[in-house]
Amino acid sequence: MTYCVGLSLDKGLVLMSDTRTNSGVDNISVFRKMFHWSVPGDRVITLMTAGNLATTQAVISQLEERSKALEDRQNSLLELPSMYRVAVEVGRLLRSTVRETQNENGNSGKGRFTASIILAGQIKGMEPRLFMIYPEGNFIEASSDTPFFQIGETKYGRPIILRAYDPKMSFEEAVKLLMVSFDSTLKANLSVGLPMDLMVIERDRFEPKYERRIEYGDPYFETISSGWGDALKDAFQALPSFTFEE
Amino acid sequence: MTYCVGLSLDKGLVLMSDTRTNSGVDNISVFRKMFHWSVPGDRVITLMTAGNLATTQAVISQLEERSKALEDRQNSLLELPSMYRVAVEVGRLLRSTVRETQNENGNSGKGRFTASIILAGQIKGMEPRLFMIYPEGNFIEASSDTPFFQIGETKYGRPIILRAYDPKMSFEEAVKLLMVSFDSTLKANLSVGLPMDLMVIERDRFEPKYERRIEYGDPYFETISSGWGDALKDAFQALPSFTFEE
Repeated sequence: MTYCVGLSLDKGLVLMSDTRTNSGVDNISVFRKMFHWSVPGDRVITLMTAGNLATTQAVISQLEERSKALEDRQNSLLELPSMYRVAVEVGRLLRSTVRETQNENGNSGKGRFTASIILAGQIKGMEPRLFMIYPEGNFIEASSDTPFFQIGETKYGRPIILRAYDPKMSFEEAVKLLMVSFDSTLKANLSVGLPMDLMVIERDRFEPKYERRIEYGDPYFETISSGWGDALKDAFQALPSFTFEE
Repeated sequence: MTYCVGLSLDKGLVLMSDTRTNSGVDNISVFRKMFHWSVPGDRVITLMTAGNLATTQAVISQLEERSKALEDRQNSLLELPSMYRVAVEVGRLLRSTVRETQNENGNSGKGRFTASIILAGQIKGMEPRLFMIYPEGNFIEASSDTPFFQIGETKYGRPIILRAYDPKMSFEEAVKLLMVSFDSTLKANLSVGLPMDLMVIERDRFEPKYERRIEYGDPYFETISSGWGDALKDAFQALPSFTFEE
C-alpha cells in the first residue's frame, strides 16, 4: 500500500508521501511516489501516486518524456495552460495505462492494475489547486468544504486531520499535522513505511518552497512520534473517567 | 459495516459495539450486535458480531434456542465445560451457517455472506478469555502481546487503543478509551453509528458487572466527543512545530 496526503491551505499546498511498495509482506521496496515539475516564475506541478507501481511509473515516465522532448511538447505539463487541463491530461494518461494493462492481460477483475493520483500545483495568474484523479481518469477538486485528499491507507491517519486541520494554519503547523497523521499510520500498518517525501508549495512562488526526504531517525519525526504518544496519553488522562452508576 | 472492540484487562473484559447495519447508504437500520448469556455464579459469555446480518442472526438464534430447550441442551453455551469449547462450538455454527448460505445461493464469490465474531467470557474455575472467530470457524485468542480484538471498521479507532491501552487500567478508564476509539470511528465513517452497547465483565463475578446502551445525546459520550476534539487540538499544539532550514 501507500499513504499520501495533500493539504490545501490559504498559504499554499503541503504534500507528503511514504515510499513503501509491497507485493506481499515479503517483497517490500522503497520507491518514490512524489514527482514534481516546475518552470520558475511560471508553474509548479506535483503528483503523488498510489496503486499498482508499474502503472504509476508508466504514467510518470510518459509525463517525463513529454516534458523533456523540446521539439514535441504537446500536452506537456510544462505547457498546458491551466491546472484543470493538467488534471484532464494526467487522467487521460492514467486511464489509458490502466486499460491497456488490463486488456493486454485479459483481466476483467477489479482493481489489479489501477492507481490513483493526487495532483497539486499552481500556474501563473491562477490559484493553487488540488485534485484527486481516479483510475477511470475522472477527477475531483478540493474545496473549502473538503480541503485535503488522501490516497492509499487513509483511515488510521484521518481522525487527526479531521480534528486539527485549519486552512489558516502555517506551513510549519501543517507539516507537523502530516507528521502526526503519518506516524499514526506507520504505527498501525506495515504497508506504509519510511522514508517519506515532503513538499511545500507556497502561493505565487512557482517553485517548491521546501522539499525534503524524511529518513529513518529524522530527529523532528522522532520527536513528533514519541511526543505524540505522550501527548495523546496526557490528553486521554485529562478527559473525565466514566462512572458506573451502581 | 460495524465496529466492535473487546479489551482484555487484568480486572476483566470490557466490550463495546455499535448498532448500525447498512445495505447501501440508503438502507440503514439499528440492530443489536452484542449478546450475552450468563448463569450467575457459574459463567458469563458475550458475543459481538460483524458481517452479514442474516448470518450473524442465524448463529445467535441457534445459540439462543439451545440455551432455552431445557431437555436438549447439548452443546449449549450454558453447559459447555470451557471457553475454548464455546469458541469451537460458535466457530462450527458460524462456518456451517456461512457455508449453507453460500452453497444455497451458488455463490462462489468471496465474503458475501461471511461474518466474524468476538467471543468473551469466563467460566467458573478458569480465567476470563477473549477470542476472535473467523468466518471459516477457526479462531485466535488474545494474549498479553495482543490483548484486544476489533472487528468491522477497525482502522480509524486503532491508533488511540495502541497508544493508551494498559492492561492495568481501571474499568472506568477502559470505557473512556473505547468511547474515544468509537468517537474517532463515528466521526470518519457513516457505516458505524450510535447507539452503542457497553458491557463490563469483572473477573470472577459470572454476571455482567455493567451493561448499558449509550444513546444519542448520552451526556458522558458527548463530553468525551467534544472534550477529545479539544484535547487532541491541545496535544497537537503542544508538540514543537516543524522548522524550515532555509
